[in-house]
Amino acid sequence: MDYAKEALKKHREWKGKIRVAAACPVKTRDDLSIAYTPGVAEPCREISRDVSKGYDYTRRGNLVAVVTDGTAVLGLGDIGPEAGMPVMEGKCVLFREFAGVDAFPLCIRSKEPDEIVRTVEMIAGSFGGINLEDISAPRCFEIEKRLKASLDIPVFHDDQHGTAVVVGAALINALKVVGKELGGVRAVVNGAGAAGIACTRFLLSLGLRDVILCDRQGAVCEGGSWLNPVQREMARVTNRAHRRGTLADAVKGADVFLGVSAPDCLSQDMVRSMNRDAVIFAMANPVPEIFPEKALEAGAKIVGTGRSDYPNQINNLLAFPGIFRGALDVRASDINDEMKIAASFAIAGLVGPQELGRGCIIPSPLDRSVAPAVAKAVSEAARKSGVARI
Amino acid sequence: MDYAKEALKKHREWKGKIRVAAACPVKTRDDLSIAYTPGVAEPCREISRDVSKGYDYTRRGNLVAVVTDGTAVLGLGDIGPEAGMPVMEGKCVLFREFAGVDAFPLCIRSKEPDEIVRTVEMIAGSFGGINLEDISAPRCFEIEKRLKASLDIPVFHDDQHGTAVVVGAALINALKVVGKELGGVRAVVNGAGAAGIACTRFLLSLGLRDVILCDRQGAVCEGGSWLNPVQREMARVTNRAHRRGTLADAVKGADVFLGVSAPDCLSQDMVRSMNRDAVIFAMANPVPEIFPEKALEAGAKIVGTGRSDYPNQINNLLAFPGIFRGALDVRASDINDEMKIAASFAIAGLVGPQELGRGCIIPSPLDRSVAPAVAKAVSEAARKSGVARI
Repeated sequence: MDYAKEALKKHREWKGKIRVAAACPVKTRDDLSIAYTPGVAEPCREISRDVSKGYDYTRRGNLVAVVTDGTAVLGLGDIGPEAGMPVMEGKCVLFREFAGVDAFPLCIRSKEPDEIVRTVEMIAGSFGGINLEDISAPRCFEIEKRLKASLDIPVFHDDQHGTAVVVGAALINALKVVGKELGGVRAVVNGAGAAGIACTRFLLSLGLRDVILCDRQGAVCEGGSWLNPVQREMARVTNRAHRRGTLADAVKGADVFLGVSAPDCLSQDMVRSMNRDAVIFAMANPVPEIFPEKALEAGAKIVGTGRSDYPNQINNLLAFPGIFRGALDVRASDINDEMKIAASFAIAGLVGPQELGRGCIIPSPLDRSVAPAVAKAVSEAARKSGVARI
Repeated sequence: MDYAKEALKKHREWKGKIRVAAACPVKTRDDLSIAYTPGVAEPCREISRDVSKGYDYTRRGNLVAVVTDGTAVLGLGDIGPEAGMPVMEGKCVLFREFAGVDAFPLCIRSKEPDEIVRTVEMIAGSFGGINLEDISAPRCFEIEKRLKASLDIPVFHDDQHGTAVVVGAALINALKVVGKELGGVRAVVNGAGAAGIACTRFLLSLGLRDVILCDRQGAVCEGGSWLNPVQREMARVTNRAHRRGTLADAVKGADVFLGVSAPDCLSQDMVRSMNRDAVIFAMANPVPEIFPEKALEAGAKIVGTGRSDYPNQINNLLAFPGIFRGALDVRASDINDEMKIAASFAIAGLVGPQELGRGCIIPSPLDRSVAPAVAKAVSEAARKSGVARI
């Protein structure tokens, strides 16, 4: 199927992938007097006395804003806020269909972190959570950090943490298959943007100890002159052996390659230089860092990609609906590391011992049982870590 | 029925009166590839090339933001942004049910016009129109004016213009019943806040010539020391005979009293002092400026209120759904006077000559034929006045 052509046609027919529906009757005078004036005054008064009552009397507790500035939309780059909206609407559909979350898309007409942060702060009282989406690095780090500090509802940049959680789940299971321990493997993460940095941080929090982050200029290493502030921060917690050089140098002897970078940048020779039973997640989309058949031919044991036409599809859809569902269910004030780790293990745990294997390290993104399982684990982790409010 | 108690109960059951629904399937891999990646990239590219394509490929063209800062919610005053949300959700339900408009509620956590304007400007690319709601005067005037100037989508403060349009419709028909002409009557508008000022301006644009605006301090008159800037502006276009004094002085000999003010402020004696066949719209809610039975007893010919339990209910619901429907249908860049006047005449025109009478000057707010008729008239007026874009 020609997805581009079909997508244009279908999007024209749909005229938008979301609708705002009414959930109360307004047929009679009594209906109106209860849903609207004069009856509505009473819930208003209650919320005015105690703002948390908004969760009882309005949709707030199930409502997530999907916010973008349109600067890093898919692989298209900075295409402008309005042009990001088809992706944001799609995300809202997935929130609804996979986790029963009401999600609403908002694009912001600014690239200034100050203005983006201020705008989200201004409207945050309308929502139970904020999903940041397709905001370019390094601005996305600052925006998320500031919003997490100022808001009392969960703020989650999916391109970072959704990816990290699913990569974590895939790696947990892949290492089971090859019989290695996370604390004992050496990993290389290629691509030191939002996803690469978030994945690296998250894998460290899962127990990975030896990891080199690479960018186009080579290995991120303390003292590197080309590093941006976030990469400099990463240089202090990764690559403790201070290896320098290219990606080809970095992957020599490595157990795990994670690419969130560019098409065709991992050669078969590089794969051959890796440790035995190498695990390769080549997530550039639609053309991965190396195609699975080539990686396997060069000796890789397990290969995952972002593509739906190969086994082991590593897709954020496995994470974000259930994570927000779980956070909203306990009215969490944050989505913290404990909750993300719980999500990763929940996703990994859904692949049973009988199914687990080289070609099956992760559930299908279309599997409707994933989000409820993730939600349950995330709610529990929120309770244990003290951010649940009900 | 105890509406307050019932509203609390029902609002707790509903947990919000709106839902965000999906309007495309995401069951299969192909579904996902069309509604989401990789297919979605194509509509994104199209909008990036031409931002107006957002109206073809996203919900924008049918989507209205219902925006409040919570400073003038119903008669409750400044109760805070989150506390205004039950009203905003109710409004969204009415938009959906009466006109098929997708409306989404947003509360803004600031009372500063600068911040409110900036926030709405930032998110405006997500919507086809902005309905401002329950923002206190005089801030609402500045906020609306600035947004109308900076945005290329309709901005409409319903408390002002929705009220004005419906009052206009009611007055057009009331004067038919009593056999008077708008250009020949003397009117008094009591309440020089958002609604009172908007009604006065609108009635002047409909052809009213002799009108006195009153506030708690009495008649608004050039040179009055207590006038705020907007009231001073009004003093230059109303009360050309420079009458001073109290409301009681102003209504002597008047043909029309319009109250958007306070309970019980119009006495039977004042009604008796009015011209023969007086028309009284006593719209304070829930307790009007004078109850209909008392006004009729004192000699008024026609009485309208905001209440559903008396004849002639003057309710914004007759206006805003159809006005936005009409504006969205032709992708109007503005809701201008021509469109509002067309809406008034459309509403008035729905009361046929046989029905028209003292107890029937305006359709029922629950009449589903009103919004489509208003929409048609508004679309035509938008075309004629040059603000339609399709």
